[in-house]
Amino acid sequence: MAAVKLQVLKKDTKTKARLGKLYTPHGIVDTPVFMPVGTQATVKTMSPEELKDIDAKIILSNTYHLYLRPGHELIKKAGGLHRFMNWDGTILTDSGGFQVFSLGDLRKISEEGVEFRSHLDGSKQFLSPEKSIEVQMALGSDIVMAFDECTPYPSTHEYAEKSAQRTTRWLKRCKDSLTTTGTQALFGIVQGGMFEDLRKQSAREVTELDLPGYAIGGLSVGESKEIMYEVLDYTVPLLPENKPRYLMGVGSPDALIEGAIRGIDMFDCVLPTRIARNGTAMTRFGKLVIRNAEFADDFSPIDPTCDCYTCRNYSRAYIRHLIKADEIFGLRLMTIHNLRFLINVMGEIRQAIQEENLLEYRNKFFAEYGYEK
Amino acid sequence: MAAVKLQVLKKDTKTKARLGKLYTPHGIVDTPVFMPVGTQATVKTMSPEELKDIDAKIILSNTYHLYLRPGHELIKKAGGLHRFMNWDGTILTDSGGFQVFSLGDLRKISEEGVEFRSHLDGSKQFLSPEKSIEVQMALGSDIVMAFDECTPYPSTHEYAEKSAQRTTRWLKRCKDSLTTTGTQALFGIVQGGMFEDLRKQSAREVTELDLPGYAIGGLSVGESKEIMYEVLDYTVPLLPENKPRYLMGVGSPDALIEGAIRGIDMFDCVLPTRIARNGTAMTRFGKLVIRNAEFADDFSPIDPTCDCYTCRNYSRAYIRHLIKADEIFGLRLMTIHNLRFLINVMGEIRQAIQEENLLEYRNKFFAEYGYEK
Repeated sequence: MAAVKLQVLKKDTKTKARLGKLYTPHGIVDTPVFMPVGTQATVKTMSPEELKDIDAKIILSNTYHLYLRPGHELIKKAGGLHRFMNWDGTILTDSGGFQVFSLGDLRKISEEGVEFRSHLDGSKQFLSPEKSIEVQMALGSDIVMAFDECTPYPSTHEYAEKSAQRTTRWLKRCKDSLTTTGTQALFGIVQGGMFEDLRKQSAREVTELDLPGYAIGGLSVGESKEIMYEVLDYTVPLLPENKPRYLMGVGSPDALIEGAIRGIDMFDCVLPTRIARNGTAMTRFGKLVIRNAEFADDFSPIDPTCDCYTCRNYSRAYIRHLIKADEIFGLRLMTIHNLRFLINVMGEIRQAIQEENLLEYRNKFFAEYGYEK
Repeated sequence: MAAVKLQVLKKDTKTKARLGKLYTPHGIVDTPVFMPVGTQATVKTMSPEELKDIDAKIILSNTYHLYLRPGHELIKKAGGLHRFMNWDGTILTDSGGFQVFSLGDLRKISEEGVEFRSHLDGSKQFLSPEKSIEVQMALGSDIVMAFDECTPYPSTHEYAEKSAQRTTRWLKRCKDSLTTTGTQALFGIVQGGMFEDLRKQSAREVTELDLPGYAIGGLSVGESKEIMYEVLDYTVPLLPENKPRYLMGVGSPDALIEGAIRGIDMFDCVLPTRIARNGTAMTRFGKLVIRNAEFADDFSPIDPTCDCYTCRNYSRAYIRHLIKADEIFGLRLMTIHNLRFLINVMGEIRQAIQEENLLEYRNKFFAEYGYEK
């Protein structure tokens, strides 16, 4: 029996969207879902109780960072990542692939894996499919991502093809390495750049392995949203209906809606938490830069339609003061708001699928929020 | 009727300690009490709910900082400091005196007040007894501190005398300026350096004004603890029995106990929150530097005897990881622990007064914690 299973509750008749429940060893997650990112075994600024309060059910954590610090063996000794960080909800860990490939000159790729220099102390390190799975098994995450190359954009057809083929070969090694399939589910990642033939080839090879879930990688890497949606248009239908589909690294509200419309079940992104700490709030009416002088004596909440702790208790003027004064509580309030906003949007998406008016919801949302390129 | 009133419930028979209830417009505070410092309208890293959770009933906020940013008029417009920062407990505001005198070359003292340069933008600013009270009336704090000079250490007898006399003259101007005595209580401050005759003179002049409370200032400024306790020994008895006595800027656990023994009711200090953010925890067994390698795989709580959120849920290893990784949640967990520790110590002091074994409690505490010079 697989550790993670998607139950599709309803398929939208006008779009490819679906409503589901993702069963995991640490709880049931309503889908489509947005996953907050907790890179270093903490969603920046937030406590686990606050994550529950905003109704986060699943978070993502980063193999690369935890491997380097504090080390996966230490976390294993602590009883796994859930216990180490006091989070009893679902955890998905990425593979570290994205981070090591992003190191540029500091990494060297071979068929065996990637040798790289730690960004912390310059020490020589090595990640491979086997090592990434070993680390993720030590972490004990519910969903384990395959060690892949996120194909850069732009790439030539030749590079994207070689890269996607290696990702497939590495996926097989990942699958062979994971010995904890009763409690951990391996998701394969479809690559292939912006090339339809390569995406088809990758999707065919990856889905042949009959894994508990599939991700679409290599998007939101610099291409336009039109291109991203086009890739989703032809890639998502290649994935099995009864398995969860995860669009990696995407978290702008418009892309969440467009992704759901195209049949995506899971999303993650550092965007909402990162811009929160820079003082930018996401609201139903577009972004709000809280440092702006216009908010100095604005005693209304960030978003009057929002039900989050921040909007229920604090004014724009107060939050602006905290952010300008470099006060940590300001970063907390902004983070709570942005995450709750996206989680609320996901709830509205699910409700719209249920009520079969997702396209109307999208149009109304875009009219208020503005479409982001 | 005074805005703030102390009810002395019990006097210790073996020491000068007393158990009391401080009635304020925003609640009743058990004394002796430690007040967490919320310099910029926030106790660094903490939410108001977390402050309540550790049983903080009264916090201190800083006139100097709030005057410069965001400005007292803005906070008045927000409905006062309580509402601005969402804290419905008691607030004491200092006068700004300590901060402007600390500016050294950046300030110029006259009988009228202190001209100084803002540490934020270098702009020319002015604080006087009248201005400080105007700012504190706008903030709407429950307890308003007089604008004084915290006499530097060491000082000559001549300087300390002149300084204390000016503090007294300024106190009269503060009293004349405060027009909100129904909701705000002015505390006078006894100065006089480390000179017994000057402390006596200051205490006599200050208490003649029949204010709702009195503070002892100019201690914990570099002198030894022996000298501080000696000054308390001869100064506290000069203050009326039925009024609260506040020892400013003192917050090490041993000094809280020794202060209570000498009849002090209120304390404040940035120490517990500041060292928390540097990764130093206060525990019953002394200080613990969480960055130390010995805690890397120590899965026990910071202090096994502590009942705080941090100690109930997180290990030294996890907190060490967070602090080393510069994660804000680590600063939160450390701050919660250190404040809860001091608040617990104050609760134990109150219980010991109740049970008439305060000296035994001190000896036991010092034996475990170690005495700090």
